[in-house]
Amino acid sequence: MSQGKLLYAQSGGVTAVINATAAAVIDTARRRKVPVLAARNGIIGALREDLIDTSKESAAAIKALRRTPGGAFGSCRYKLKSLEQNRAQYERLIAVLKAHDIRWFLYNGGNDSADTSLKISQIGRELGYPVNVIGVPKTVDNDLAVTDCCPGFGSVAKYTAVSVAEASLDVESMCASSTKVFIVEVMGRHAGWIAAAGGLAARKAGDPPHLILFPEVAFDEDAFLARVKATVERVGYCTVVASEGLKNTAGQFLAEAGTRDAFGHAQLGGVAPVLAQLVKQKLGYKYHWALPDYLQRSARHLASKTDAEQAWAVGKAAVEYALAGRNAVMPVIVRTSDAPYRWKIEPASLERVANHEKKLPKNFISRDGYGITAAARRYLEPLIRGEDPPTYLRDGLPDYVRLKNAAVRRKLPRYDIAD
Amino acid sequence: MSQGKLLYAQSGGVTAVINATAAAVIDTARRRKVPVLAARNGIIGALREDLIDTSKESAAAIKALRRTPGGAFGSCRYKLKSLEQNRAQYERLIAVLKAHDIRWFLYNGGNDSADTSLKISQIGRELGYPVNVIGVPKTVDNDLAVTDCCPGFGSVAKYTAVSVAEASLDVESMCASSTKVFIVEVMGRHAGWIAAAGGLAARKAGDPPHLILFPEVAFDEDAFLARVKATVERVGYCTVVASEGLKNTAGQFLAEAGTRDAFGHAQLGGVAPVLAQLVKQKLGYKYHWALPDYLQRSARHLASKTDAEQAWAVGKAAVEYALAGRNAVMPVIVRTSDAPYRWKIEPASLERVANHEKKLPKNFISRDGYGITAAARRYLEPLIRGEDPPTYLRDGLPDYVRLKNAAVRRKLPRYDIAD
Repeated sequence: MSQGKLLYAQSGGVTAVINATAAAVIDTARRRKVPVLAARNGIIGALREDLIDTSKESAAAIKALRRTPGGAFGSCRYKLKSLEQNRAQYERLIAVLKAHDIRWFLYNGGNDSADTSLKISQIGRELGYPVNVIGVPKTVDNDLAVTDCCPGFGSVAKYTAVSVAEASLDVESMCASSTKVFIVEVMGRHAGWIAAAGGLAARKAGDPPHLILFPEVAFDEDAFLARVKATVERVGYCTVVASEGLKNTAGQFLAEAGTRDAFGHAQLGGVAPVLAQLVKQKLGYKYHWALPDYLQRSARHLASKTDAEQAWAVGKAAVEYALAGRNAVMPVIVRTSDAPYRWKIEPASLERVANHEKKLPKNFISRDGYGITAAARRYLEPLIRGEDPPTYLRDGLPDYVRLKNAAVRRKLPRYDIAD
Repeated sequence: MSQGKLLYAQSGGVTAVINATAAAVIDTARRRKVPVLAARNGIIGALREDLIDTSKESAAAIKALRRTPGGAFGSCRYKLKSLEQNRAQYERLIAVLKAHDIRWFLYNGGNDSADTSLKISQIGRELGYPVNVIGVPKTVDNDLAVTDCCPGFGSVAKYTAVSVAEASLDVESMCASSTKVFIVEVMGRHAGWIAAAGGLAARKAGDPPHLILFPEVAFDEDAFLARVKATVERVGYCTVVASEGLKNTAGQFLAEAGTRDAFGHAQLGGVAPVLAQLVKQKLGYKYHWALPDYLQRSARHLASKTDAEQAWAVGKAAVEYALAGRNAVMPVIVRTSDAPYRWKIEPASLERVANHEKKLPKNFISRDGYGITAAARRYLEPLIRGEDPPTYLRDGLPDYVRLKNAAVRRKLPRYDIAD
């Protein structure tokens, strides 16, 4: 009788370190002689029976995978409907798992994925094919409940803090005769975790960034402009970190509210150009703005060591939990001490994780609404600590790997879902 | 009798490694027991007699300076007028040099600075105060004549190549159900050197970036859209590197030609959002775009080792040339071999450097206009080779230094110039 296989799938926006989790899953399972299949493009591949045989990948490839950004097997933005709405889809999933003798399913994603994992574990039992489902945490948004932080966040936080520090040194040296206001737009549609991380660039009071604009704080144009002006007059320039999710007092996204293009469409840019334009029109300062977009969440070259280690640890624990017979849990990061920073991995019930969103605590935002507090710094700083650079090859580029991703032969009828 | 002092000034847009040049100047001069003053905010400080005494900086600070981005003494965008137009300004400069017993002036900048250096060396002799002026090369634009490459370019090239590779891995993993077109806008108003460097991300044919848009090639909307469509259909997604200086067939910058905001102003964004909008409207693909702006030229954390070494070498050579009595020259980088890559520093007459612009060679752009050739790769690849990371401190941030920049006591009447 076969011993069963483990299926691993990636879900949602990828991170600089989600492949470290994948590498840990494969490495840990190999040590336990458990074959690992991966779903191509996340749950879409699982539904389509588009599976990848990871045994075809060399040990060297898995080693390089640990330090490769992106999602090596493909991820997806695809939310399964509820059991009531689309039971057939869950049944299909169970049929695929059964056809390939999959006893353990590891789903690496955010809030939605935790919910999906929970449902799959439930319906498998209902349908008489019990599969052990483990949710594995991942998201640059840092908004998963229960876990102290999310693998992926520490690296985007480090990228943001370092980039803000670097670009500010640039602006500082030019401001006497050139750019006076520099705006960096960071990810975070609903919560200001990444914007807050930008605040780590300031080692002491007065250091840039001078203003952080959080989605949690309604944008007050007059107050913002007054702050920018005062900062430029005091230190010669002003660095602003703006969250893409910044909203005006009417609750509209600033990136959509302000400007329209020649065709009358809402401008497709971000919040940074809107703020820059405002600064130019109202204060007359020369500005520059940056919008790193995907560069921030894929910057594996600047990964946080803490983050890379935690990404590995949750992958390893997920396999261990699965093989130990646990079900419907997620390995979460528990912080046991701020200084020295200490953490451990523990299993948490998916019911506690699914569909909850962790907000940026109110006491992380300074009273004036434009900075971070000591409490925020205490929480954030350990997460960007340490470096874990990739190996660079002779051509000056990192040794990032593209896997073979050899397909597993299909056993079931074709199943169509919309892209 | 005093032995004389050396004055160092930074000019124009700063780079990730201009401070390595500054550190080399100070280090080399210290070994020769020559005091170094620096002009605050470049030539503006020299005119205003706003000078910095670098002897107040510790050896540790100068060591950290080598790996700190930005311009440590301040730089400026300020072009001296011609001798005929503003002789008084040149006379003031000579008066400042004379008042502080400055025998050697090192001016670290691009084309304009080379021209200014030349003129100062001429007028000093005319006015009976001969000062040895050495131009020191620096520019991310890589457009200085005579030198094989410019310190500052290799690091922005490496940042661009690595970022394109990383973000493409991200897009590749999401494209089945999400973003299909990703556009990165890079610096280069007049020449496509940085855009070309983005091409290094592709280790083999078919690798991203799939399209490079050079300022040297007029933008053809239909051809571009057809290429994007074909690429998405073939590989699932399309990465585009677009130069900020991209122009349409009428010779207008695309960033300014396309869209106007609600107030009728030309959109202040870049070329990336214009292209993204086009892709959405005409092809319907989901897109993302990034505009790293200053992040690309200040990313000292990802500096090229070749670049950092060359930045140091030109600083060291500049001091040696000056003290050896050379005048109106620039230490330039001479490539003696592509493979293995070998280079040396040689003096070149400032007359040969000043006011010439090095264009991207025609044979660096592939026949179809959307990629780089083997010749480009041969030239570019050694420039991004090797890493030279900063030291990171316990807080996860690089050990970037802010100097004391202690002012030298003024000896002359105040001299006003516009900011």
